[in-house]
Amino acid sequence: MARRYFEDFAEGLTVDIGTFTLSADEIVSFARQYDPQPMHVDPEAARASVYGGLIASGWHTVARYMRLLVDAVIGESASMGSPGVDSLRWFKPVRPDETLRGRFTVLESRPSNSRPDWGIVRSRGEVLNAADEVVMRLEAVNFLARRPPG
Amino acid sequence: MARRYFEDFAEGLTVDIGTFTLSADEIVSFARQYDPQPMHVDPEAARASVYGGLIASGWHTVARYMRLLVDAVIGESASMGSPGVDSLRWFKPVRPDETLRGRFTVLESRPSNSRPDWGIVRSRGEVLNAADEVVMRLEAVNFLARRPPG
Repeated sequence: MARRYFEDFAEGLTVDIGTFTLSADEIVSFARQYDPQPMHVDPEAARASVYGGLIASGWHTVARYMRLLVDAVIGESASMGSPGVDSLRWFKPVRPDETLRGRFTVLESRPSNSRPDWGIVRSRGEVLNAADEVVMRLEAVNFLARRPPG
Repeated sequence: MARRYFEDFAEGLTVDIGTFTLSADEIVSFARQYDPQPMHVDPEAARASVYGGLIASGWHTVARYMRLLVDAVIGESASMGSPGVDSLRWFKPVRPDETLRGRFTVLESRPSNSRPDWGIVRSRGEVLNAADEVVMRLEAVNFLARRPPG
């Protein structure tokens, strides 16, 4: 596939970026390192909680979304990094072995004022479950190099 | 320490939640799994990039912030989870072996309308470097149980 530049991220572009699952072991292992709350690391405490069972750390879900995005879109692009995320929402708990899929949509695409060789892409990222419910959504900003002349 | 409830998260409360560093190995290992962009996984490509050397995935920095927060604040609290983050900004690249410290500040604290046994806490999380520059900032929302009567 050809390398993608800013010009390839047109407003409205939508890309299905693939699927993932998180096993109970993966959920507990990530959470032990980064988010050791009972509902993420302790199946028994999770069962007794308002969530009724083990759920993934929201940071785990977003990290796996990022991996899909890099594999499907950003890895082949002239990405210059990101200043941040404007909104990140976890709508539904993610449970072990659910099949989840990612979707990336370009919301806005404009040249950078301060760096004429860069463009700025604002995007929506979503993670959906098997019932097509959105379980996570974020709006992110990314810098991309503009296509070199010639 | 006594278990903390919603009532303990007063507006203006600030907690220094500790320090962390990310080694080059940790940066590469996290990024191979979740964010395999060249500036996070390939020291040579990173040197040739606009960043001039290996930098941590922003998702790694926020995950380590989360761990500090759980260890210092949330782990002892009646946390009921989070609906999300209103803003997340990476202001400066995080490089291997920098000493970073976390700070947590309560911005707003109010009872839940829909769940009278819960409160809603809006907070600012920051990661600062040795020069006291803010390298990352987020504004998050958390649900906490109210202190049981009696």
